[in-house]
Amino acid sequence: MNITILGAGNVATQLALGLRKAGHSIVQIFNRSDNAGQELARAVGASFTSDARSLQNADVYIIAVKDDAIADVASLLKAGDKIVVHTSGTKTKDLLSFCSANYGIFYPLQTMTKLSKVDFSNVPVLIEGNNEATLQLLETLARSLSKQTHKVTEEQRQWIHVAAVFANNFTNHLFAVSEEILTMHGLDFEILKPLIFRSIENLREHSPAVLQTGPAARRDKLTIERHLALLEQHKNFQELYRLLSDSITATQSKR
Amino acid sequence: MNITILGAGNVATQLALGLRKAGHSIVQIFNRSDNAGQELARAVGASFTSDARSLQNADVYIIAVKDDAIADVASLLKAGDKIVVHTSGTKTKDLLSFCSANYGIFYPLQTMTKLSKVDFSNVPVLIEGNNEATLQLLETLARSLSKQTHKVTEEQRQWIHVAAVFANNFTNHLFAVSEEILTMHGLDFEILKPLIFRSIENLREHSPAVLQTGPAARRDKLTIERHLALLEQHKNFQELYRLLSDSITATQSKR
Repeated sequence: MNITILGAGNVATQLALGLRKAGHSIVQIFNRSDNAGQELARAVGASFTSDARSLQNADVYIIAVKDDAIADVASLLKAGDKIVVHTSGTKTKDLLSFCSANYGIFYPLQTMTKLSKVDFSNVPVLIEGNNEATLQLLETLARSLSKQTHKVTEEQRQWIHVAAVFANNFTNHLFAVSEEILTMHGLDFEILKPLIFRSIENLREHSPAVLQTGPAARRDKLTIERHLALLEQHKNFQELYRLLSDSITATQSKR
Repeated sequence: MNITILGAGNVATQLALGLRKAGHSIVQIFNRSDNAGQELARAVGASFTSDARSLQNADVYIIAVKDDAIADVASLLKAGDKIVVHTSGTKTKDLLSFCSANYGIFYPLQTMTKLSKVDFSNVPVLIEGNNEATLQLLETLARSLSKQTHKVTEEQRQWIHVAAVFANNFTNHLFAVSEEILTMHGLDFEILKPLIFRSIENLREHSPAVLQTGPAARRDKLTIERHLALLEQHKNFQELYRLLSDSITATQSKR
């Protein structure tokens, strides 16, 4: 397919590279600032424009910009009956109803930076379409990229996004807290890595619900009190420790 | 060395198996309940006793029981000048001062169940001794098991344990929350696994501090408000979402 990408950030970059590798032609990169857009256009053999009036014809237009900018970029695009999608986990596809008669969602559920190339073959791609023909074309596109494509409703996509915030963004923050605690006491985060990697390996075969260990899981009040006392000098971490421990205890009580 | 293990739970089991594999002789398993103790004794070719008066001579006695039971088990043990250690991340070694003139800590920093054998070669082993000779013998023992041995102070061990609770127990709970959110909405936790495994892989090369992404990290208030509204039906998760988002924002402001 002939694809135009609007945006030149992490998701735009990885999608452009991935789609090209899957055999599609990236015809154009649109971006407001020149540098990132030109660089990406060069990388995928596309033309570049920062002027919406110079947008060429394509089969699919992918708006891969920050959530808050989707409506603005969409307002620049008149795609007729060509398909327009955005890549957000949260925003409604209806933001695109003024761009085209055919629109939807193309949401790759993966963390993306420009640091390393994404292998899309195992990245779940969540798709929505405002009609059956659009959905089918998006499914064909998603399948050319990944073995895991999922037709979802808007509500499902939003729940998956919330769950991903817990499973990715919040866990990463706890690793950062852990690193900060160690660094403040002259210790190296490296010491925790075997534990971290092993715990995650266990997730391949077991539900996190059965893998729960630690002071809160075994209702070891003495250790919890001791840890809270240690964290007295780090009020923010103390509050996290208390709420997370309470939440673990509450979860175990429900069983 | 000739080693006696007191306890037959997860840590006792894995340590007994690991030390035997490293070439040591497990002379005896002591445990109050017969079944688990006998099973472990058979697995490592040791004798079994549930009677403290039948404890035989050994070079090292390892008390691997729940934190709250360490003092009780220690009160049964008279080891003369043989080395006695416990395996807790939090408790002081001084609990053992009545068992022997030589005592310390032997704390393997890894999550352990009976489900799968632990490969100790990369498990950090944290050791303390109440004197230099004890510490040296424990270091020899630890090195026979693992490439990573660390002489620590009591305070360092406690901070490492707190950090491990954040990096392992609390992150696991967030995976469980994430799974629960998906299950409640008819979705499968599997869909998040590529994201989870990729994020953890990124930790091999980068600090979690630079890997932080998500609505809170980019101060995307609209998405945060939307997620909090979705979680209105799950007050416990809503509270976690709010506190963790605030904590991410606060961390980013410090930079």
